[in-house]
Amino acid sequence: MKGRLVAGLQPVREAITAHGRAIQRVSVEHGENPRLEALVRFATDHQVAEVTREPRALLDALTEGTVHQGVVAWAPELELLDFADLLADPGLLGIVLDGISDPQNFGAVVRSAVGIANAAVVWGEHASAPLSLATFRASAGAVEHARLCRVPSLTGSLTEAVAKGVQVVGLDAQADRALHELDLKGPTLLVLGSEGEGMGRSVRRSLSATARLAQSGRIGSLNASVAAAIALYEASNQRVKT
Amino acid sequence: MKGRLVAGLQPVREAITAHGRAIQRVSVEHGENPRLEALVRFATDHQVAEVTREPRALLDALTEGTVHQGVVAWAPELELLDFADLLADPGLLGIVLDGISDPQNFGAVVRSAVGIANAAVVWGEHASAPLSLATFRASAGAVEHARLCRVPSLTGSLTEAVAKGVQVVGLDAQADRALHELDLKGPTLLVLGSEGEGMGRSVRRSLSATARLAQSGRIGSLNASVAAAIALYEASNQRVKT
Repeated sequence: MKGRLVAGLQPVREAITAHGRAIQRVSVEHGENPRLEALVRFATDHQVAEVTREPRALLDALTEGTVHQGVVAWAPELELLDFADLLADPGLLGIVLDGISDPQNFGAVVRSAVGIANAAVVWGEHASAPLSLATFRASAGAVEHARLCRVPSLTGSLTEAVAKGVQVVGLDAQADRALHELDLKGPTLLVLGSEGEGMGRSVRRSLSATARLAQSGRIGSLNASVAAAIALYEASNQRVKT
Repeated sequence: MKGRLVAGLQPVREAITAHGRAIQRVSVEHGENPRLEALVRFATDHQVAEVTREPRALLDALTEGTVHQGVVAWAPELELLDFADLLADPGLLGIVLDGISDPQNFGAVVRSAVGIANAAVVWGEHASAPLSLATFRASAGAVEHARLCRVPSLTGSLTEAVAKGVQVVGLDAQADRALHELDLKGPTLLVLGSEGEGMGRSVRRSLSATARLAQSGRIGSLNASVAAAIALYEASNQRVKT
């Protein structure tokens, strides 16, 4: 079977919602399960090409340890955006991930980005977790609706963005200014470093500004998806208020 | 061994930071592991009463499936706040959980609350996940620093809060007003329902207002800890700006 494997109730449901008849196959495990029956009906209603029943052991083998809840699907490859097209968007709002190597964190950030203003998610292909089954699952299927952009070199791309007038703001607990003090209404990329190490040195040099997320609290200890969500909320709220 | 069992590198480290010599015992598994050695030194430096080496199987048995990363500790019971004391705080900011039954979500919300303005976390003892090993772990140890308040009846407590002049705002994707349109500078409790079912009917009747989190995006699909973080960020930012 070709295509991109997706596993779990919510990820498969979102894949069906996004791709419908372009889903090549949905496979559910044998046995009675109302939630799986509902998903089979959902797949049929959305004209998924083929729905099969399989032994649980086959799903276990396919998913290699990722929780599948008795269902997998083969979906089209995710379409990635071109960075140049992103830069051409006058309303650009995106979160940039530098060194987020944990697929759980990566997926959770994608979920936050989709949930808030459908912001773009940009990452460097060498420094971050790949788009994997675990990422799709951690995003609760949000990855199917996300605006995703993978670039060869984050430093190069961010430098280009700054040169084209995009504000590139690194989120940094040590920064002098709080994010709400910045005007985020123009084209903006918000850069999030890894939970352990923060931003890389060359990425840091390519920023146009740095900012703290908040005034108080033990903010350094926030989960990546929470930090991303707050930053995107601040930016999108500034845009709505004007 | 008496006391409250805590498991995992970060949860144990935060427990040591918070309780120091009041930690009765830290136990690490046999074998060479630099991260465990560092934790043993950290425990000794903080005058933890006793540090022991144990077989991995014992830690597995104690933690019953929760990831322990080779270390457990016995910490003092968490001290819970009195709801009446919370209400007496003129700067009250808290998040109220109605029916968050997943310990992962419960712990993640606690982490967000501690990370943002050290907001209080309030929950009804029957309708939410208990304080468990899994909750402590999901909070990445933030529970050790959290302002926690468990009440017998959420509806009763929220009604009392409103009567005492606290603004009790239910977070609801269908609400007419966005949260940033409300003045959150006075004593405020923000109520979050379960991801599946939302707020209960009687809790809903005890609110003084409802509000959406944001203007755009597929916000209904946000993780509970992300929704809590955004709401607390909005409130704490309003307070800082005045």
